[in-house]
Amino acid sequence: MIAEFKRLLVGNPIETAAQHEQRLSKRIALAVFSSDALSSVAYASEAILFVLVLAGVQALPLVIPISVAIVVLLLIVGFSYRQTIHAYPNGGGAYIVAHENLGEVPGLVAAAALLIDYVLTVAVSISAGVFAITSLAATWGYSGLGDYRVEIALGCIALITVINLRGVKESGMIFSVPTYVFIISMVCMVVYGIFQVAMGGWVAAEPKVAEVAAAAEPLSIFLILRAFAAGCTALTGVEAISNGVPAFKQPESKNASTTLIWMIATLGFMFLGISTLAHYYGAVPREDVSVVSQLASEIVGTGPIFFIIQVATALILVLAANTSYADFPRLASLLSRDRFLPRQFSSRGDRLVFSNGVVALGVFAALLVVAFDAREQSMLPLYAIGVFISFTLSQFGMVRHWLREREPDWQRSVLINGVGAALTALVLVVIVVTKFTQGAWAVLVLTPILVLGFRAVHKHYQQVARQLSLEKAPRVEPVRRHTALVLISGIHRGVVPALEFAKSIAPDNTTALYVDLDAEQTRKIEEKWARWGAGIPLQVLDSPYRSLVRPIMRYIDEIDAQYDDDVLSVILPEFITSKWWQHLLHNQTALAIKAALLFRKGVVVISVPYHLEN
Amino acid sequence: MIAEFKRLLVGNPIETAAQHEQRLSKRIALAVFSSDALSSVAYASEAILFVLVLAGVQALPLVIPISVAIVVLLLIVGFSYRQTIHAYPNGGGAYIVAHENLGEVPGLVAAAALLIDYVLTVAVSISAGVFAITSLAATWGYSGLGDYRVEIALGCIALITVINLRGVKESGMIFSVPTYVFIISMVCMVVYGIFQVAMGGWVAAEPKVAEVAAAAEPLSIFLILRAFAAGCTALTGVEAISNGVPAFKQPESKNASTTLIWMIATLGFMFLGISTLAHYYGAVPREDVSVVSQLASEIVGTGPIFFIIQVATALILVLAANTSYADFPRLASLLSRDRFLPRQFSSRGDRLVFSNGVVALGVFAALLVVAFDAREQSMLPLYAIGVFISFTLSQFGMVRHWLREREPDWQRSVLINGVGAALTALVLVVIVVTKFTQGAWAVLVLTPILVLGFRAVHKHYQQVARQLSLEKAPRVEPVRRHTALVLISGIHRGVVPALEFAKSIAPDNTTALYVDLDAEQTRKIEEKWARWGAGIPLQVLDSPYRSLVRPIMRYIDEIDAQYDDDVLSVILPEFITSKWWQHLLHNQTALAIKAALLFRKGVVVISVPYHLEN
Repeated sequence: MIAEFKRLLVGNPIETAAQHEQRLSKRIALAVFSSDALSSVAYASEAILFVLVLAGVQALPLVIPISVAIVVLLLIVGFSYRQTIHAYPNGGGAYIVAHENLGEVPGLVAAAALLIDYVLTVAVSISAGVFAITSLAATWGYSGLGDYRVEIALGCIALITVINLRGVKESGMIFSVPTYVFIISMVCMVVYGIFQVAMGGWVAAEPKVAEVAAAAEPLSIFLILRAFAAGCTALTGVEAISNGVPAFKQPESKNASTTLIWMIATLGFMFLGISTLAHYYGAVPREDVSVVSQLASEIVGTGPIFFIIQVATALILVLAANTSYADFPRLASLLSRDRFLPRQFSSRGDRLVFSNGVVALGVFAALLVVAFDAREQSMLPLYAIGVFISFTLSQFGMVRHWLREREPDWQRSVLINGVGAALTALVLVVIVVTKFTQGAWAVLVLTPILVLGFRAVHKHYQQVARQLSLEKAPRVEPVRRHTALVLISGIHRGVVPALEFAKSIAPDNTTALYVDLDAEQTRKIEEKWARWGAGIPLQVLDSPYRSLVRPIMRYIDEIDAQYDDDVLSVILPEFITSKWWQHLLHNQTALAIKAALLFRKGVVVISVPYHLEN
Repeated sequence: MIAEFKRLLVGNPIETAAQHEQRLSKRIALAVFSSDALSSVAYASEAILFVLVLAGVQALPLVIPISVAIVVLLLIVGFSYRQTIHAYPNGGGAYIVAHENLGEVPGLVAAAALLIDYVLTVAVSISAGVFAITSLAATWGYSGLGDYRVEIALGCIALITVINLRGVKESGMIFSVPTYVFIISMVCMVVYGIFQVAMGGWVAAEPKVAEVAAAAEPLSIFLILRAFAAGCTALTGVEAISNGVPAFKQPESKNASTTLIWMIATLGFMFLGISTLAHYYGAVPREDVSVVSQLASEIVGTGPIFFIIQVATALILVLAANTSYADFPRLASLLSRDRFLPRQFSSRGDRLVFSNGVVALGVFAALLVVAFDAREQSMLPLYAIGVFISFTLSQFGMVRHWLREREPDWQRSVLINGVGAALTALVLVVIVVTKFTQGAWAVLVLTPILVLGFRAVHKHYQQVARQLSLEKAPRVEPVRRHTALVLISGIHRGVVPALEFAKSIAPDNTTALYVDLDAEQTRKIEEKWARWGAGIPLQVLDSPYRSLVRPIMRYIDEIDAQYDDDVLSVILPEFITSKWWQHLLHNQTALAIKAALLFRKGVVVISVPYHLEN
């Protein structure tokens, strides 16, 4: 029944041989891997204005040069990742690049930072997307929807988790439609808006001054850097494609590289366009309506096209979470294969996805949504740090790579990656400084804890491997003598096969054990034993505290001490009900005894079943 | 660590032989078993006035004759239960009396009704007690406490559950202090109030007419019956002592009977006193202050004595829940011994209490508290029906008992129980009719569902007993031949003892099984097998869908079909980590395979452990 429900939810199993058919075309890959990056245009320009406005209205035009600078940074980071894609065709995530070129610890730091960021991407994007929907509902007159934001967000996370458990290709199909609706509507809006501004002779509208408070701070270099850092949220998600190279159709590297260029061009155009329009339309951050919504309503009115833009924005924000569903399980499986995470993360489920990673991501994101009441504003200070940690480590790693490999044209590559590394390191410092007290500290605390955890797991697996190695293993002697203990809870048909089994392996060395919990019962058992005991001696154990397990364990210790050359087997007669729920009606004592024996050294546990008919 | 935490919470285990020392003295028994009954004076008089006031101010004086009638009913029910205590010294709950005298179905109906009522007693009493505390806090200026009523109620339930897991006697000690504070303060208040009324020449005060709405209904017989039924909540909990006879010190019946008389005298005096005072002080039901609080503040003022009365009222309401903690687990264990509930309810925990029943009661009550938002008003319509169902069945059962036994003086006994049965049946009908649409229907639906559940459980246990009976069992042949399959996940030290064990029981009939999940791994295993395989043939199984369990089950089916005269053993080499949490780092495949084999007929499962050092 559980199995059928699972089939209904996630579909039928897929053969391992079908692995290559699940690869993504460029068009679908763009939708799958770019929604995180593209969706950031919904808030990046606004984030810059939000800082600039602190210095008063006259600082607002700086949004354009700052956005240009961010696009330059974007291009540099993009070029850097293009080099990574070609150097690491099997998926060149920051973890691999940093691990190979800088060493284990930098690799693990990058991995920890990325895992944190993937969880945050899901929580932030889903929350922001749900907020867009509830805001739309509120605008259209139903303000009560906002009370259910946590429930809706959790529902969305559950839905995306299930879709991803079905497998990569199907989720790509489902997600490509809203992504392309968003891209087309956004690009059209930007083009039409710029066209109107140009027709009007490039005259900037007055910022809605009523909304703008008096300048709270002077326009300092620090403030400009802070605005720049805030706008850098536009870059989150750029690394997605380089992590996901193996999911592309062959030739993987070439297709991934082309898709990356498309994505950066689209992202850069939309981001710069919206920043420019914000200046010319005089849009400023407001409590109730986002900058992009202000632009959209001014450019296309509040009719059906406005509705489409709003819904597409909400959808791409929700779907941005999906990027993490491609990357988190893949990174977890890489860490798992290198024995830094439990093995469970490296096995593909029967739909060819890393099911455990998908489920883990969904659970962590849901916890964040509940903890932060589905308010993305509260989570934003934690966000983006992880990405810039991994950008920096990854590009320093590439610099090291080129310096070592010295391929043709290596000087140019070192220059590109070196500039990128220096710039992203600078941005990282600015983000940490400006966001530290608002929550950035939490990420800086959690990252080293995760790294220590990875190393502890790794150490454990190494110890196990060493202890299990057959090289230099002491010789195991053949079994000379069996000693058998049969645990009985009464005299019934289920006991007889267990007694026969015991006699067959230890004919002269078998004892039946019964724990005395009720004097009357014990007397009856002792009376019947002569007839039904198959000639095996019965040992009754006292249990003053009514515990079943403790007297048995004590007796086993005594017996175990008697011989040195035997194998001690504990035989449990178990009667098995025909329906699983009937199990609940019987004392789970066999289970408790097995659990206790598991951690006792050197006892073989034998379950002899007796199956009931109904 | 878990074991230590449990010890800290519930104390050290107690020997079975100490069972008699845990018996209750009469004084402590009164506190343990009467808090439910006594606490009802906090709302019973008010419940009568609440109905009477519908017919206007002139109907209010009827509270005294109605209360007298209820006290008469109380005496009759009390006499009836005294007879039960002597006729059933091992605990004469309604279940036993109805089961023995009226048959299985009436007994189960009584049991179901009582179980429902015990859960409701906990939920209602805790909620009302918490409400009293939050009301006090609100009166003294901190109204915010009411927002945490559900949390406080759940905390109280958790606390009482833990106290009861520690054992009967200790909970009696803890609970007797507030019960006696309540009794003494209430009795003093009633005596002093009556004294003042008598000094004033028995002149009734004007009811606070401003509070009383115009008469909404005529004063009909039906309305008077309804007021009577509402006041019958005073009788809830009267049956507690007769259920708990075995918990008394020897001679149990005599001590229980004496305690019952004390309880009924105290309850009758307090209830009648409060109803009388309500008339003479002109107290009427109000939204903000209860009738008892109105009386208390008029008689003793709003100083420290008022505070003591309020707190004692709150405490006894919370502690009333404790009566159910004595009765619910005991009834559940009786049902369990008769095989109408799962066996787990009949085993005493290591502190000599029926731990599973205690925990189940706590969980169900907590669910009710959450579902009804800790508002006892919403639960009251469901309450008391269960008690009157069991009163009625129990007393009809006693009538049958006397008619059959014909002991000396049987006519008088038949008369007492007959009148009681007729009266409680009448009250039951009135309660059902007047409360049906407000929730009473739910109890009437749930009761038969529980009865059907009891019978389904019973049928299952009977079938199992029949199938396990050794009478007429087919003879089990000694084991002639062993077939062994060793499941291996790799070649390491943990595998070797399993192979040796297999060779010792099936020297020429052992096969090693390996599931091919990765072609590269499989090739390595096959290469190494010649050296490490101990001469046992290796069978590699294909698994196109990467499932481990399915290919193994299929292969077992094939092997099983080969011989008819063998025992097929599946041997699992398990390496056991030295710390339990390290288990989480390894695939739980052994567990999955064991679970699958459990329901496969006729396979013996053998775990051969290999213990890791660290």
